[in-house]
Amino acid sequence: MKKLLLLLLAAPFAATAQQNVDSLFIKKISDEVFTNGKAYDLLRDLTKNIGGRLAGSPQFAKATIWGKKTLESLGADNVYLQECMVPHWVRGGKDKVVITEQNGKKVNITLDALALGNSLGSNGKPVEAEVLAVKDFAELEKRKDEVKGKIVYYNYGFNPTYVVPGQAYGETGVYRRNGPSRAAKYGAVAVLIRSLTEATDNNPHTGAMAYNDSFPKIPAAALGLYDADKLWNAATKEKVKVSVTTYAKFLPDTIGHNVIAELKGTEFPNQYITVGGHLDSWDVNEGANDDGAGIVHTMEVLRVLKALGYQPKHTLRFVLFANEENGLRGGNKYAEEAKAKNEQHIFALESDNGGFTPRGFSLGMSKDKIAKIQSWINLLKPYGSESLDEGGGGADVSPLQRNMQTPVAELRPDNQRYFDIHHARSDVFENVNKRELLLGAINMAALIYLIDKYGL
Amino acid sequence: MKKLLLLLLAAPFAATAQQNVDSLFIKKISDEVFTNGKAYDLLRDLTKNIGGRLAGSPQFAKATIWGKKTLESLGADNVYLQECMVPHWVRGGKDKVVITEQNGKKVNITLDALALGNSLGSNGKPVEAEVLAVKDFAELEKRKDEVKGKIVYYNYGFNPTYVVPGQAYGETGVYRRNGPSRAAKYGAVAVLIRSLTEATDNNPHTGAMAYNDSFPKIPAAALGLYDADKLWNAATKEKVKVSVTTYAKFLPDTIGHNVIAELKGTEFPNQYITVGGHLDSWDVNEGANDDGAGIVHTMEVLRVLKALGYQPKHTLRFVLFANEENGLRGGNKYAEEAKAKNEQHIFALESDNGGFTPRGFSLGMSKDKIAKIQSWINLLKPYGSESLDEGGGGADVSPLQRNMQTPVAELRPDNQRYFDIHHARSDVFENVNKRELLLGAINMAALIYLIDKYGL
Repeated sequence: MKKLLLLLLAAPFAATAQQNVDSLFIKKISDEVFTNGKAYDLLRDLTKNIGGRLAGSPQFAKATIWGKKTLESLGADNVYLQECMVPHWVRGGKDKVVITEQNGKKVNITLDALALGNSLGSNGKPVEAEVLAVKDFAELEKRKDEVKGKIVYYNYGFNPTYVVPGQAYGETGVYRRNGPSRAAKYGAVAVLIRSLTEATDNNPHTGAMAYNDSFPKIPAAALGLYDADKLWNAATKEKVKVSVTTYAKFLPDTIGHNVIAELKGTEFPNQYITVGGHLDSWDVNEGANDDGAGIVHTMEVLRVLKALGYQPKHTLRFVLFANEENGLRGGNKYAEEAKAKNEQHIFALESDNGGFTPRGFSLGMSKDKIAKIQSWINLLKPYGSESLDEGGGGADVSPLQRNMQTPVAELRPDNQRYFDIHHARSDVFENVNKRELLLGAINMAALIYLIDKYGL
Repeated sequence: MKKLLLLLLAAPFAATAQQNVDSLFIKKISDEVFTNGKAYDLLRDLTKNIGGRLAGSPQFAKATIWGKKTLESLGADNVYLQECMVPHWVRGGKDKVVITEQNGKKVNITLDALALGNSLGSNGKPVEAEVLAVKDFAELEKRKDEVKGKIVYYNYGFNPTYVVPGQAYGETGVYRRNGPSRAAKYGAVAVLIRSLTEATDNNPHTGAMAYNDSFPKIPAAALGLYDADKLWNAATKEKVKVSVTTYAKFLPDTIGHNVIAELKGTEFPNQYITVGGHLDSWDVNEGANDDGAGIVHTMEVLRVLKALGYQPKHTLRFVLFANEENGLRGGNKYAEEAKAKNEQHIFALESDNGGFTPRGFSLGMSKDKIAKIQSWINLLKPYGSESLDEGGGGADVSPLQRNMQTPVAELRPDNQRYFDIHHARSDVFENVNKRELLLGAINMAALIYLIDKYGL
C-alpha cells in the first residue's frame, strides 16, 4: 500500500517535471509564432497574388512554384516536387441559371449558381425544362415517373440543429456528389442543388461531384440560398421552367506536383512525421480557409521549429498536397510512393478545416495511441486544444492511414463559420483572422514537437 | 466495502438519470434557438436601424423604446423602464490629427484618430505642438522635464504573446484611462495613444478615459495602428509637430433607462436571477459585438424559455443596461434599487464579450458555488462551454456582486477577434456570425435553466 502510494506520488512528480520542460518549449513556440509568425502574410501573398488554384490550372502551377520557393526560404533541409497526374477540369465560362417561365408566363429571373466541380456543362447551350423540385432522394424515388425530361432540383438543406455544422455537411454531401446521376437515371436533363451551407448570403457553393458512368452525364449546378428558397417556393407552388447554361469540361489530365520539404531527423532519419495541407483550391475564390490556411499552417510549423533551433529526432515532412478538391491525386501519390519505398511513417497531421480558433485535434489511430496523445492535454489546453477525440485525419493523409496504417490526425478549428464560406466566392483572405490562424499553427507545432520527442 | 461500492455505483446512476432530463431539455433549447432563434435578426434591426447609441444620445433613447417593445413582444410578464441619470458626452465633430512638421519641414499627413470617450476637445481649434513619443509611463516619468508644452504620444501596444487578447487589453487600458492626466501633470497640451488593439487595419479604437481633476483637462485621442507606427517611427527619429483638433464635450446629465423584463417565478417569486447586456454603445460604430450581442443574447434567452413553455421557479429578470461604456450608471442604479428594496438576488449573468463562439463562463462567486456549476460541465460541453473558471462577472453586474454579494458570471466567447473591432468603426453587424451568436444564447439559456432549477 505504501509502495503504491509512493508510486502514485512519484509518477505525477516525474510527469510534472517533464511536462514543465515541454510546457516551456510550447510557450516558446507560441511566443515566437504570435510575435514573428509569417502565416498571415504568406496567406495574403498566396490568396491575393495567386488566388484560386484548381489542380491543372496555370494558377496551380504558379502556386507550386511559390510553395517550393517559400519552403526553401524557410530553411528546410531539402525541398522537392513529387510529380503526379492531376485532373484538369475547367469551368469554361460563366454559369447561368435562369427561371424562364412561371405558371405559363415568361419571366427572366437569374439565379446565382455555380456548376459543380467535375460536372460536364451544356456546351454553353441553354438546357431549358420544367423543374421537378424534391426535398430529398426519398421524394425523388417516389416521383421517379415524373423525372423524364425535367430539371431536378434538390432542396436538401443543412440541418441547423447540429452544434457542429460539419455534421450537416456530411449529411448533405451525397446530394452534391451523387444527386446528378441519381436523377439522370430517371431521365432528368439537368440537376440543381441547394448549396451545402447555412450562410446568410446568396453565394452558391461549388464542390466535387462524380458521375455514375451508367447514366447520361447531365449538367449540374448549386444555387445560393436566397435563390434556392426562391426556386423552391416557386416550383412547389406552380409550374416553373428553368434554363441551365454551363460550359464545364475536362481537358486531358496534366502534370501536377506535391511540394515536399524536409527537416532531417537526428535519431530516426528514416522515420517520417508528415504535416500538410492542400495547395489546390476551387477556381471561384481565393481558397483562403480551404486550404490556404492549411498551407500556411504547415509552413509556419516549419518556420517556428527552425526559428527555435529545434532539431527533430524523426524526419519531418512538410507537404503541400496537389488536388484534394477534385481528385485526391496528390494524397494518393504521396502514400503510394511511401509504400513503394517502404518508408516508415509514424504520424501524419493535416490542416484542412480552415484558419479558425483551434479547439483540438481529431485522431485516427489505435486507442493506446489516442490515450498517449490525450495524456498531453494539459500541455495543449492553454492554446485552445480542449478536445483530443477519435476521428478522421483528413482527406490527404487518409491514403497513408488506409494503406500503411499510419496514425493520422487533423486540426479541429472552431467549425461555426467554415461552411459559410466553404467552396464559395466568399472564401477570401479577409475572412481569415490573423490571431486565429496563428493559434492553429501553434497547436500543430506543439503536437508535432510532442510526437517527435516521445514517439507514438 | 460493498456498501461503499454500492454507493459509488448508485450516485452516478442517480446523477445520470437526472442529467439525462437536463441534457434533453438543453438539447431542446439548442434546437429551438438554432431553428427559430431571433437573436441575429434582432441584432440586424438594432445595428442597422438604430446604430451607434451612446448614453444620452437620441439613438440611445430610440434603442430604449426598441428594447422595451421587443421584450414585450417576446412575452415577458412585465416590462418596465428603470430611470437613471446618464452622462451625455458628445464627440461634437470630426476628430482630426495631422502631422504638420517633420524635421523642420512643413508636411500635411492626416492620421486616423478618434477622441477618447469622456475627453474634452479643443473646441475645434487645433492644438499644435511638438510630439514627445514614449513607449510607456516609465519613460514618461524619466523624461518628465521634456513634457511641458508638448503632445505626449504613448505607443504602448498589445502584447501579442497572450493567448487571450483580453489580457493585453487589461494591461494597456491604463494608458487610455489615465494617460492624459499623467501627461497633463507635467504640462502636456494633448495626448495621443496607440489604439488598444492588434487589428490588422488602421481603425482607431475609442473608449472611456477619466481626468484627474488636479490637472488640466487636455484633449486626448487614439490612433489606428498603421498611423500609430507612422508617428512612432517619425517622432523617435526626428522632431515632429502634430496638430490635434477635437470637439468633444459634456452636455448636462440626462435621463436614461435600464429596460427590464420579468418572467415571474412559480416557487420563489421574490428571488431574482438576472440576465443582461448593455444597450449603449460607442457613437462611432453599430455596437454589434459590444454589446448588441449581449442585448440579443438576453432577448433570446427570454424567447427560448417562453417558446419551450418553461416556467421558472425564481423570477428571471432580463435587463438591458444603460451606459456601461462611459459611466456604468445603469448597472449601479440596478444594484442600488435592488438593495433599497432588499431584493434577494441569487445570480446575475452578463454577456459583454461579443457574439463569438462560446468557450465557457467566468464565475465570480464562492468556491462551493463554482464547484456546483462545474458539476454541470458535461451538460454544457456539447454546446462549447469547456471551461467554467473563477473570474469576474462583467461590469454591469459587478455592483450587485460588490454591494449585495450576488454570485455573478459572464459568458466567455472566443476572444481572438474581439479587440480587432472593439470600440472601432468595424464593430458592425457584418462582423457577427449567426451561428456563433446563437450558440452564445444557447449556453446562457442552459446555465440559467440549471441555476433556476437547482438554485445556487
